[in-house]
Amino acid sequence: MSLSLKPGFSFGGHLQRLYPEENLSRETVFLENSDEYWMTQALSKSMENGCAANPNPSVGCVVVSNNNIISSGCTEIWGGKHAERVAFECLKEGELAGTTVYVTLEPCTHVGKQPPCVELFRNKGIAKVIIATEDPNPIVSGKGIQQLKEMGIECKVGVLKTEVQAWLSPFFIQQLNKRPFIALKWAQSLDGCFADDHDGWQWISGIQSRKYTHWLRQKYDAILIGVGTLLNDFPSLDVREIQNQYKRNPLKIIYDPFGKIFRCTEQEQEKLNEKSFKMGTKQIILINSRILLDEQEKNSKWFQSLKNNKNFLLQKLKDKSENKVTGIIVESLKGKEIDEFFGRPLQSILIEGGPRLLSVFLQEKMYDVLHVFIAPFFLGGEKHKLFSNKQRTIVPYFFRDVSQVERMKIVLQEKLGNDILLEMVQEY
Amino acid sequence: MSLSLKPGFSFGGHLQRLYPEENLSRETVFLENSDEYWMTQALSKSMENGCAANPNPSVGCVVVSNNNIISSGCTEIWGGKHAERVAFECLKEGELAGTTVYVTLEPCTHVGKQPPCVELFRNKGIAKVIIATEDPNPIVSGKGIQQLKEMGIECKVGVLKTEVQAWLSPFFIQQLNKRPFIALKWAQSLDGCFADDHDGWQWISGIQSRKYTHWLRQKYDAILIGVGTLLNDFPSLDVREIQNQYKRNPLKIIYDPFGKIFRCTEQEQEKLNEKSFKMGTKQIILINSRILLDEQEKNSKWFQSLKNNKNFLLQKLKDKSENKVTGIIVESLKGKEIDEFFGRPLQSILIEGGPRLLSVFLQEKMYDVLHVFIAPFFLGGEKHKLFSNKQRTIVPYFFRDVSQVERMKIVLQEKLGNDILLEMVQEY
Repeated sequence: MSLSLKPGFSFGGHLQRLYPEENLSRETVFLENSDEYWMTQALSKSMENGCAANPNPSVGCVVVSNNNIISSGCTEIWGGKHAERVAFECLKEGELAGTTVYVTLEPCTHVGKQPPCVELFRNKGIAKVIIATEDPNPIVSGKGIQQLKEMGIECKVGVLKTEVQAWLSPFFIQQLNKRPFIALKWAQSLDGCFADDHDGWQWISGIQSRKYTHWLRQKYDAILIGVGTLLNDFPSLDVREIQNQYKRNPLKIIYDPFGKIFRCTEQEQEKLNEKSFKMGTKQIILINSRILLDEQEKNSKWFQSLKNNKNFLLQKLKDKSENKVTGIIVESLKGKEIDEFFGRPLQSILIEGGPRLLSVFLQEKMYDVLHVFIAPFFLGGEKHKLFSNKQRTIVPYFFRDVSQVERMKIVLQEKLGNDILLEMVQEY
Repeated sequence: MSLSLKPGFSFGGHLQRLYPEENLSRETVFLENSDEYWMTQALSKSMENGCAANPNPSVGCVVVSNNNIISSGCTEIWGGKHAERVAFECLKEGELAGTTVYVTLEPCTHVGKQPPCVELFRNKGIAKVIIATEDPNPIVSGKGIQQLKEMGIECKVGVLKTEVQAWLSPFFIQQLNKRPFIALKWAQSLDGCFADDHDGWQWISGIQSRKYTHWLRQKYDAILIGVGTLLNDFPSLDVREIQNQYKRNPLKIIYDPFGKIFRCTEQEQEKLNEKSFKMGTKQIILINSRILLDEQEKNSKWFQSLKNNKNFLLQKLKDKSENKVTGIIVESLKGKEIDEFFGRPLQSILIEGGPRLLSVFLQEKMYDVLHVFIAPFFLGGEKHKLFSNKQRTIVPYFFRDVSQVERMKIVLQEKLGNDILLEMVQEY
């Protein structure tokens, strides 16, 4: 993926759609009726259902006739209709004739839960199909376009390719690398603090930034946090402030190698039930395979309630000592058992912290994108920072010489409220 | 000053002028021939001489006739011609008739080193004068505009007002607050490090960011650093990579309360002569009034060479114990002796570090603007950071509770190369 996004586009899609009333500082203005203009509409449309289509790609389609959109569609929830079908079904017989169809991803050619989309284009008199990007799967990539051409339809490929690929990046990474897409997200002060040293929980970033976070929580399939963050903040990690036809809360994953959660106090148990577990969403607790609980702990009401709750999966971490910590985590979240528990293939994970866990993912370079909010103030704290000396338990000593440092590539900077959102990728 | 800059404008002026070949991510595109379009040209023109006009404002003027610029001018070096005079002198008799004149600052009405500019407009048949901002001095503010109107010339005021005020902010602050304008500048990694813990000197930011720094060094009159930075980095602090008609290097100010510089080793003396002092530019060394040197030190060749060099001024810090550290520094840089040494009134100071000195200016809120470059990598160091625990010598303990924190206001975010430039002001 070559990544240099046009202003106004992000891994969260077309920002203006998320902030319709805001005057975003950066927004690429396309000529009206240009291919880029209509493809932007198709991308915006593809965001309509959040990403309820996962692991299918959330595709958008608009049908343009005489410089007007006469129909549009977004991929439905997994197993439902694809974007082209949704868009075409709204039209009467013959209405597709002479139109230009904008679709963010090459129409599929295979029979999955739905018949192949490319067949929908046959014998409709469609003048032109504009496609943002080919299918990433090398086995089918280009086939949809080829079939369209064989039907005598003019095709143009590559309009807003990078911008659409960023939005569909979990699908692309899953197809290409056969592992879940990993996004890291945090909010920090200018001096890199996630919180002040009083340990009190307070927002670092402003309301516009938080809205983007909620949007990401439903874009990605799961949220991963460390048990320290769970027992410190008791976050609910649910999706708020976002309206969609198919609203969904992400799967929660707690990284708890030593089983701290099984030994938490009654007060903590109450708080967990009240706050973090109240939504009834599914939770995976990742624990070491060799974790030891004594008889009393095993027989405790709390342990039994976790063990017998079908919303909870106690998943043992794979035991490969040669692997990196993050490699073990990601490997342990692959496979049939996880997918069955989740209810569909797990395609993407948003890692929300705390700083200890994020530091390991950064250090081991196990990520596809960073979503970083920077709030313009200083805290002067020392505890809640990435790579802090106070976090040596899971973070091995981290220190880089400037001359040997690896710079990330900034693909987006945007001012949201009075915060800066940066999105960065590894230089690959 | 209400500060919300349009994309592409900064405290360094119109960014596109500094980076003509770069495709800046943010750039406000005005309709051709709109007032904003021509005022942007006037602002760009005003940047032509760096800020050699200081303490006079660097003003730009363009004369537009039939949608063409027929003449333009920028304020010359201090004591030289003002922008309007430069622009008008290029024109033949009668050519001003029917034109629209764009000028970034209200024409002056007083006799200074130059006769009043407003008289240049009389009886020329000028159709219209467009002005970005009134003069900040309440005694003359509005008088130039009034006189233009009395001449029967149509006036419009306020086009790109905020953008021009940012560029002219040292002049505005000096006029309004009777003290030098204070700008802080630093480059940091994402985790807030200025350098790695090996103390080796290396660029944090990329070449485009450094170009902006050089531009600022000639915008501002002086650069202030701490003696620790001087003896650690031996910086030359000169202006490179910038071409102007009137190129100038800033005055250097070394904050050295305990007179470390007088006691430096021979090797350090050599390095200073080779690197930091080689340009022959003027230097002020700020020392405590009660500093004690023994006879041997006083008679040393090194001390005598500093004392007798007319490029050096050993300036004693004012001794007001009730003041904040930064208040004492700024007070000690005001007054006739300093202005005479500098050769003109000292209007602005760029504080370039190190982190210890910058932390004090931040903590005591003694600044008008922050220029901050953020480079997208992590260092994990602990020594070279703002508000570091390892810097308690001059920084009193700094810690903020998130709930009580004062957020700065971001007025610019721009990607320069692969760095982020933020410009921030206090919320006033």
